[in-house]
Amino acid sequence: MTYAKIGTIAFDADDTLWHNERIFIGAKDRYKHLLARYHDPDWIEERLDATESRNIRHFGYGVKGFTLSMIETAVELTEGRITGTEIREIIGFARDMLTSPIEILKGAPEAVAELSGKYKLMVITKGDLFDQEAKISRSGLGEYFEEVEIVSEKTVSVYQKIAKRHSIDLSGFVMVGNSLRSDILPVVEIGGRAVYVPYETEWFHERVEESDLEGKEFDRIKDLSELPVWVRNFE
Amino acid sequence: MTYAKIGTIAFDADDTLWHNERIFIGAKDRYKHLLARYHDPDWIEERLDATESRNIRHFGYGVKGFTLSMIETAVELTEGRITGTEIREIIGFARDMLTSPIEILKGAPEAVAELSGKYKLMVITKGDLFDQEAKISRSGLGEYFEEVEIVSEKTVSVYQKIAKRHSIDLSGFVMVGNSLRSDILPVVEIGGRAVYVPYETEWFHERVEESDLEGKEFDRIKDLSELPVWVRNFE
Repeated sequence: MTYAKIGTIAFDADDTLWHNERIFIGAKDRYKHLLARYHDPDWIEERLDATESRNIRHFGYGVKGFTLSMIETAVELTEGRITGTEIREIIGFARDMLTSPIEILKGAPEAVAELSGKYKLMVITKGDLFDQEAKISRSGLGEYFEEVEIVSEKTVSVYQKIAKRHSIDLSGFVMVGNSLRSDILPVVEIGGRAVYVPYETEWFHERVEESDLEGKEFDRIKDLSELPVWVRNFE
Repeated sequence: MTYAKIGTIAFDADDTLWHNERIFIGAKDRYKHLLARYHDPDWIEERLDATESRNIRHFGYGVKGFTLSMIETAVELTEGRITGTEIREIIGFARDMLTSPIEILKGAPEAVAELSGKYKLMVITKGDLFDQEAKISRSGLGEYFEEVEIVSEKTVSVYQKIAKRHSIDLSGFVMVGNSLRSDILPVVEIGGRAVYVPYETEWFHERVEESDLEGKEFDRIKDLSELPVWVRNFE
């Protein structure tokens, strides 16, 4: 693959710029604790994951859809015996998730501050529009990004549309993110550079097969503090 | 106000291109019926509206947030006596709302088909990203719109940002929609043309004071079948 000089660097947001999965894991723990008198935690988690997978085509990604899945699973698991007070607690988890402080990931503020002087920076993220906008604003990093694209899926055609919309030359485009499926593979496929920054956990929706990675050209860094150095190699 | 020749025509989606409020009213009716053994329908509606208003800053607009508000209100109104089966029915309302057939409004397909040949057409709509994308796709009107902007609020600064992003000259921009607050007033304020198409009902979040309309220059049409004629006046 031949590339042009880097022009635009796009970042995934959740679990790339700030912790997110942690907030879901925290809510799941509270949920399992809440339902502990009805069921075993592993079984609760398994049923919740199954409900979520089933609902994602209706609800998409994000806290609100996740919360509806928590409520639905609670009704199922308790055969309708779940109490109003418990349901109210679950809705409280949603409000807590949506207002929880943003924990920025290591190296992120320094990397975006440094790179924003030289490159056009973007955020390209999935999730609830309302929730993502609020997080970008609360993160304090908003000023570094010229464009924010909140999308429902990150597929080849979505990246192509974004590139067209912003007149981005894909051979000078870099995508930085923690999801092989959403941030790395589709961007490599359309001729962009991709930098994989693994997060501490991997969301089951984002898993890819090892065979899908064969022959795919992308780089991996430990955290965003390594990104400016990586970019400098192409100057 | 002096305007340039019309270049871009943007449409609101819900209750401008297709029925939406109707779907919410239908779900509210089912909800009031479901809770009829606990409370009077008017009181249920009043409490639900209050919960929704309180939650909108956390949940934003859309079916999922509305459903969480229905569930929360049901717990409150029944002092926790709501049953699991009833909660499950409320979640079923959400799935039904998200998959209900799109009912296109009168004149919409003809207007967008005719105007798309001569002008750049856009959709600018609020709501859940995932839900709105699905509706645009299911409506069959998607092909007529060069750009779709799904936003969390429609304020002056949001319109300015969209105009900048798409290099739109606001003096040649037209916004068409059913909300004075979201579609008309902010666009008039930044020097665009606005065409008000009242819907059969008005959502309480979108109401404006009569005094806010004083001296504001915008036109009103009965339905979208009148739009091509209105546009022709400026050719």
